[in-house]
Amino acid sequence: MFTVRTPEEAVEIIRANCCRKTHTEFVPLAECAGRILAEDIPAQEYVPGFDRSTVDGYAVRASDTFGCSDSIPAILPATFAVEMGRDPEGPLPAGACVYVPTGGALPDGADAVVMIEYTEDYGDGTIGIMKPASPGANVIYKGDDVYPGKVVLTAGRRLIAQDAGALAAMGVLSVPVSARPVIGILSTGDELVPPSEVPSGGQIRDVNSVLLDVLCREIGAQTKSYGIIRDDAGLLTDALEKAIAECDAVLISGGSSVGARDATAEVIERRGRLLFHGIAMKPGKPTILGLAGDTPVFGLPGHPVAAFFITRLFVREMIAGMTGEILQDLPVKARLTEAISANHGRSEAIGVRITEENGQRYATPIHTKSGLISSLAGSDGFMLISRDCEGLPAGTETDIFPY
Amino acid sequence: MFTVRTPEEAVEIIRANCCRKTHTEFVPLAECAGRILAEDIPAQEYVPGFDRSTVDGYAVRASDTFGCSDSIPAILPATFAVEMGRDPEGPLPAGACVYVPTGGALPDGADAVVMIEYTEDYGDGTIGIMKPASPGANVIYKGDDVYPGKVVLTAGRRLIAQDAGALAAMGVLSVPVSARPVIGILSTGDELVPPSEVPSGGQIRDVNSVLLDVLCREIGAQTKSYGIIRDDAGLLTDALEKAIAECDAVLISGGSSVGARDATAEVIERRGRLLFHGIAMKPGKPTILGLAGDTPVFGLPGHPVAAFFITRLFVREMIAGMTGEILQDLPVKARLTEAISANHGRSEAIGVRITEENGQRYATPIHTKSGLISSLAGSDGFMLISRDCEGLPAGTETDIFPY
Repeated sequence: MFTVRTPEEAVEIIRANCCRKTHTEFVPLAECAGRILAEDIPAQEYVPGFDRSTVDGYAVRASDTFGCSDSIPAILPATFAVEMGRDPEGPLPAGACVYVPTGGALPDGADAVVMIEYTEDYGDGTIGIMKPASPGANVIYKGDDVYPGKVVLTAGRRLIAQDAGALAAMGVLSVPVSARPVIGILSTGDELVPPSEVPSGGQIRDVNSVLLDVLCREIGAQTKSYGIIRDDAGLLTDALEKAIAECDAVLISGGSSVGARDATAEVIERRGRLLFHGIAMKPGKPTILGLAGDTPVFGLPGHPVAAFFITRLFVREMIAGMTGEILQDLPVKARLTEAISANHGRSEAIGVRITEENGQRYATPIHTKSGLISSLAGSDGFMLISRDCEGLPAGTETDIFPY
Repeated sequence: MFTVRTPEEAVEIIRANCCRKTHTEFVPLAECAGRILAEDIPAQEYVPGFDRSTVDGYAVRASDTFGCSDSIPAILPATFAVEMGRDPEGPLPAGACVYVPTGGALPDGADAVVMIEYTEDYGDGTIGIMKPASPGANVIYKGDDVYPGKVVLTAGRRLIAQDAGALAAMGVLSVPVSARPVIGILSTGDELVPPSEVPSGGQIRDVNSVLLDVLCREIGAQTKSYGIIRDDAGLLTDALEKAIAECDAVLISGGSSVGARDATAEVIERRGRLLFHGIAMKPGKPTILGLAGDTPVFGLPGHPVAAFFITRLFVREMIAGMTGEILQDLPVKARLTEAISANHGRSEAIGVRITEENGQRYATPIHTKSGLISSLAGSDGFMLISRDCEGLPAGTETDIFPY
């Protein structure tokens, strides 16, 4: 007999059963943003590949500048000048100095650079150094940044522009990322019509097909749509079987459709096993999860707000498991503009609008009862209320997870 | 004479001079995520389009149930049943009740629904109602959610999956969004080689072309790359003129390249005017901004970390202005793992790694001196230190802007 699971238990079950890793594929550097890194990336080279100056100035042996000052400069012959992008002409002769631009290579023998502001060119081939340099001053040594074998980016990271920059600096042009799992999406319910149609009496537009498609792609999956399936056991079973054969996981939504629930449970039981039947949370309690063979099948509630939250909170865990993504959810603080009532033993997810006034951030809960479109449109994040919460007064500072 | 601007002044100048709106284009609903809504979207229809039940139960006239209870049920004949997706067969006869499933249409005359749990089917065509319903109980009225003319999504919003869901519910299949501005990207510097090449002595790989390309696309622009331009006044001017002619704005980076700065300033002065020359912030002080004709041209520092921050903080303002995006930056709180020193009159942007331990969030500053790749790779967000900051001790709770 299956009991209703807490959200924490549901996540554990998903992680243990539904996260078969996708294969690794290689994408061009320019296309890596948003993808999940499949392997640790170690540096192959020393960066910088040579000792570099961090300032415009004169490369010296630090010991040649010890004790100098404005009034008693160290006077060193300037032999050659280092040019950007070129190897120095030779080593630094003993007791001499060499001009180096910012980023230029230090000649062998030099161990410090004196900023040009602290030097004077006497015009006779000698330079006055007014300030002593300690060894290593204004120098980045070869390998200071990275060296062969040092892990620069770790597997599981969702790559961003700066990571692409780091990969460019290392010469990694083809990036190993996890293939996007293919998520099949089916809507059921005899009352549903495609968004392109004007609903007639009793009908409503199918929101979940679009919502779950866009959401799963935002999360990092590819999607495959199977459209609206009529509430007929045979049709539902056929469509489900087709989706299971073609996808890494399947989402079927249709809470008001008893046939969908039955067909989903039937296919799962014939082909695999039910993992849970119900999550103790609001909205989304009637969620089913099972395995058909080893393909996860979610039976989602038909109400789009419920389907959204179950996907955001649980399907996302599955997709992250499949790509190996390390999820990092960073809540922001905001004060409630109104009280939240106790929720009697069920966790609750509530969408909020975030506003700012006089430097204070506020969260206004969006009540699902205010209607489907209003609850979906224009929300900025959500809050999670634990199941033992006794209610929260207006003004409470809470954690909001921004979208 | 141009003076160095504070970051706040720089943003004002950008907003006032560099934010020519792009045109509006229409994208299919499934492709709207991440795009900036160009117009307010008002509802065209009533949603729901009919009075609906929110529960499985019996539609009644509330007044027929007043005073009933478990022991003295109101006994009402059940005439017909409403089917999902169908108009009711007719109005609710006086003194009768009608079965309605969740989401089903209320027949005319009904003004409340009694949940099935509070009813009993006597099997003789009559239903016992055990609990009185007040008018409106378990009913969503036509237009409760939205009505014609009500603005559902406002212009300037970056669209997410739930917005796509709301648009689907309203039958909006083609979404008006701001065209992505085209940003031209040039790198200069004789020391630069493409990421595909192994740098020889004194050379380094061109990081900015990739970094700025990916970053501008993350922000919401299209990009056009002009590659690495040698530090030659004629070549730089030609490349800049070409980019200015083909793009909505141009980013040229090359801080160590004096020629680039000169050529940029020369083209700007010949073709338009300099807006500022220097921002009082670290890193990124030597940033130039000007107009060539009415095309903004940013001269960015060559150091990728500086180029990154100037793009994230200032180019992003320009792109948001061009698309009309309303930016909403939501910092999260984290405790510094180490002290930050005073920054003597310059604002400072510092990348951080975010970690969590025992429910406490920590931010570890990434020092630019720790090297290019290490400063770019694996950072999770950044902090902004104001110019009058006297330093922050370890353990200070600060605002972090996550990437």
